[in-house]
Amino acid sequence: MTRQQILFLEDLAVGDEFHSAEQRLDEAQMIDFARQFDPQPFHTDSVAAKDTFFHGLAASGWYTAAVTMKLLAGSMPLGGGLIGAGCELQWPRPTRPGDILQVVSTILKIVPSRSRPDRAIVTVECLTRNQRADVCQRMVTQLVVMRRSAHAPTTGPSVP
Amino acid sequence: MTRQQILFLEDLAVGDEFHSAEQRLDEAQMIDFARQFDPQPFHTDSVAAKDTFFHGLAASGWYTAAVTMKLLAGSMPLGGGLIGAGCELQWPRPTRPGDILQVVSTILKIVPSRSRPDRAIVTVECLTRNQRADVCQRMVTQLVVMRRSAHAPTTGPSVP
Repeated sequence: MTRQQILFLEDLAVGDEFHSAEQRLDEAQMIDFARQFDPQPFHTDSVAAKDTFFHGLAASGWYTAAVTMKLLAGSMPLGGGLIGAGCELQWPRPTRPGDILQVVSTILKIVPSRSRPDRAIVTVECLTRNQRADVCQRMVTQLVVMRRSAHAPTTGPSVP
Repeated sequence: MTRQQILFLEDLAVGDEFHSAEQRLDEAQMIDFARQFDPQPFHTDSVAAKDTFFHGLAASGWYTAAVTMKLLAGSMPLGGGLIGAGCELQWPRPTRPGDILQVVSTILKIVPSRSRPDRAIVTVECLTRNQRADVCQRMVTQLVVMRRSAHAPTTGPSVP
């Protein structure tokens, strides 16, 4: 898939895969995020983190999730945007400063809306792997995806 | 619950509730977050957002999740920290600039680890509500919680 091609429901099929760019995790940004949103020593202080559950500085899972969103936004160009109704998240292992993350997203299911024929709920598995191919985050998300034929800027009502 | 009281597994029971402080969502911080992690027009541009699914600027769900984490960290003082193994998230409605969020967390389940008697998996429902008491995010999360007796003696209060 090229970045420029905008995709609608008609373009998607179960099994389609989307590979993101890579992003190297910067320790300063990781710590800055944690100070704002998840101020716990194992996320903010590399020395204090040694004596914790994580045995060293680990990113907040919400930072890993946010970086995953950025990589997903750059790799799955849906018309109307990436609109999540909800998701399941697992963090089987921590991400660390210097890790290089990449997200591979696979369409698991497409369920057309009964009440709104202009859209479907598309279930996508997004695996966030580090440079050793270890899965650091598994997300299964439900996206609201519009049909091309229905897409017009003013048609979208509130959350389904 | 007072902020100062550090809680361990022995202190928790199904049904316990934790009420966070309130946080007003700042438009500039909301947009800054979206530019870094979720650069879509309905999250970054209040004018362009009018003609989208959200009918106006809406926070990234990941920003709502991050603010929720901050409010949770301030309201559920677990010894050893808040360590999430995974969660389910739903965003039934968007959060908007100026919304005032509060998180109420309720313990749903406590399952002692079979292999590691020093800990349990505690399932917590965290409802993030706005100033009209509308639920903007529902999270059900699994936390790893340590027993006081297994925790290093210098970090927790003495056993009564």
